[in-house]
Amino acid sequence: MSPKPMARPGGRSARVQASVHAAVHALEAEQGRAALSVPAIAARAGVTPSTIYRRWGDLQELLSDVAVERLRPEEPPLDLGDVRADLTAWARQFLEEMASPTGRAYIRDALLGDPDGGNAGQCSTYAAAQIEVILGRARERGEAVPDREAVLDSLVAPMMYRILFRPGRLTDAYADHLVHAALGRPERLV
Amino acid sequence: MSPKPMARPGGRSARVQASVHAAVHALEAEQGRAALSVPAIAARAGVTPSTIYRRWGDLQELLSDVAVERLRPEEPPLDLGDVRADLTAWARQFLEEMASPTGRAYIRDALLGDPDGGNAGQCSTYAAAQIEVILGRARERGEAVPDREAVLDSLVAPMMYRILFRPGRLTDAYADHLVHAALGRPERLV
Repeated sequence: MSPKPMARPGGRSARVQASVHAAVHALEAEQGRAALSVPAIAARAGVTPSTIYRRWGDLQELLSDVAVERLRPEEPPLDLGDVRADLTAWARQFLEEMASPTGRAYIRDALLGDPDGGNAGQCSTYAAAQIEVILGRARERGEAVPDREAVLDSLVAPMMYRILFRPGRLTDAYADHLVHAALGRPERLV
Repeated sequence: MSPKPMARPGGRSARVQASVHAAVHALEAEQGRAALSVPAIAARAGVTPSTIYRRWGDLQELLSDVAVERLRPEEPPLDLGDVRADLTAWARQFLEEMASPTGRAYIRDALLGDPDGGNAGQCSTYAAAQIEVILGRARERGEAVPDREAVLDSLVAPMMYRILFRPGRLTDAYADHLVHAALGRPERLV
């Protein structure tokens, strides 16, 4: 896979990316997933198919980029004033979004058209950044918190593992259970 | 996706499956991954392409089945007489195999050609069964152990998450760290 050109905001490359992504969204919404093809997307975006092939390689790599863009969090996590409340709210929302049919489709797309792992890595970077915000706030309040990688292992990893490999347990109660495991159960706190 | 016919051992269906899987292995070993196509596999297996399309749908679904078959553990986990030693040995081997280029390719294949999630679920079932053997032995020895689902969350999920989404940490030391987290760190045991 050749490296993707960087998209300078406002440059031609960024405009092509925006119009191609928008064309994928529009076609999918109007005609469904099966209608997505490079020629159809190109026609809708007003570019040539070869522009898409040059930049993305194939349909799967394009859909992987679109999926990662959609998986990007739109806002910082809620600030409820307490690490347990913040992580619980974040984990419940993450699980609900990722376990939904749409979320699963994006995760799948992100993984499939991603031979070098860059897009999958970006998904993890998004989650890590959100968790770091929550942990950073807690540290500023003087709360003792685990480090970010430990929270990824004990909270994010089990949710993603069950979404991809092990159906069931994809509920608020499960998210709460994992937060307890990540922070230590309340009944064990002194 | 239509349901796959069951392969009765010794029946025609089982013979077709065995010869097609063997053809995939042989072609891949001789000519590499890029040489795999349904016509080439069919010719090598001595079946018609339509036999493959009827049974597997497409190349991706066939490769998913082949991958799951290769990910099936060949023997029960080592019995070292102690749950910590058993889990450590199992986790180190699991991580080494799954994080290898070959292991990653199989995980990827298993996920990609698996629209209904059955093959990904089978991968998790294999890991769960191995862990259950280790925990069952420990219970028979009177050791207190966590339940299987807790071990999947705290040991298997982080390894798979980092293999798929978050490069780095794929070492024996990381496997050991996760076993400690799953069982409680030794220094905390009374």
